[in-house]
Amino acid sequence: MSEALKQLIGETQAKFKADAEAAKATFESRSALQEGLRTEVSLRHHQLTVDEPPALGGTDSGPNPVELILAALGTCQEITYRAYATALGIPLDNVSVTVEGDIDLRGFFAVDDSVRAGYEAVRGTVHLESSASEEQLELLRGAVNAHCPVLDILSNPVPVELDLKITQTSVEAAA
Amino acid sequence: MSEALKQLIGETQAKFKADAEAAKATFESRSALQEGLRTEVSLRHHQLTVDEPPALGGTDSGPNPVELILAALGTCQEITYRAYATALGIPLDNVSVTVEGDIDLRGFFAVDDSVRAGYEAVRGTVHLESSASEEQLELLRGAVNAHCPVLDILSNPVPVELDLKITQTSVEAAA
Repeated sequence: MSEALKQLIGETQAKFKADAEAAKATFESRSALQEGLRTEVSLRHHQLTVDEPPALGGTDSGPNPVELILAALGTCQEITYRAYATALGIPLDNVSVTVEGDIDLRGFFAVDDSVRAGYEAVRGTVHLESSASEEQLELLRGAVNAHCPVLDILSNPVPVELDLKITQTSVEAAA
Repeated sequence: MSEALKQLIGETQAKFKADAEAAKATFESRSALQEGLRTEVSLRHHQLTVDEPPALGGTDSGPNPVELILAALGTCQEITYRAYATALGIPLDNVSVTVEGDIDLRGFFAVDDSVRAGYEAVRGTVHLESSASEEQLELLRGAVNAHCPVLDILSNPVPVELDLKITQTSVEAAA
């Protein structure tokens, strides 16, 4: 696995160096709200149920959207550690991540408009099991944090554009 | 459902107005990398498998981390539309969202350090089915976009702190 991944990374880097257009990718999410606050998501052929816990008005049939943000960060760190350890030839037996996010719900509930709606702070612990030296692992950490897509997405603003498409229903149909 | 949700929102707002501390919440993700780039996540009692497609070195046993970011945004928009439509008494039959994110993989693969690792742009279409007027739905859109937690998380920087915890293994054990 490790050799195959190392080869894939090297080949992909060479390909993207030669052809910048080949590096451009677009990912997509399609979702639709169901009963209450439950929503069903398609990510390519993968399905996901998202909901809110009862205290936030849902039936807890899945994680909520802000929990997905933490899952995205934790897993992106792990995958990036594995990829960069492999590429740099640094031994890495295991990697696991715990991430916490603090949110002040007065933002979402419009109780205080000076309170942001999203996370005020995110903290995590990355646990590495490795026979490498501390210096090598600090070097690895630097490479990972400079290239982890989700860490970049959270740390720096992403331009988001949302269009509205309205299908008018009759009052009778809506009742 | 709609009446129960409206009552819950009103009661929650009153509670948070009276007691700001009650509005502080912390969410958590725990994950551990398995074989290859597959990782298993726990979000409270919910489980999730995250992986990469083969072109990015994985076995595609689940969505990847940057897809989760798009799912988080789409579902957060839907839930926030439902909550604010209910609170404002604006009829809303259905809401669905498609979100796309553009990423230049030269960032993740360290081919060009001037290219960011995360999304360069995110675009979405929110599809509302409603008997409300266009003016009411534009008002709803304004309220939603001002209070959607994930839209805030993507649009504005979130302070992220990641600690490293190292468990030293012997070279023999790692081999």
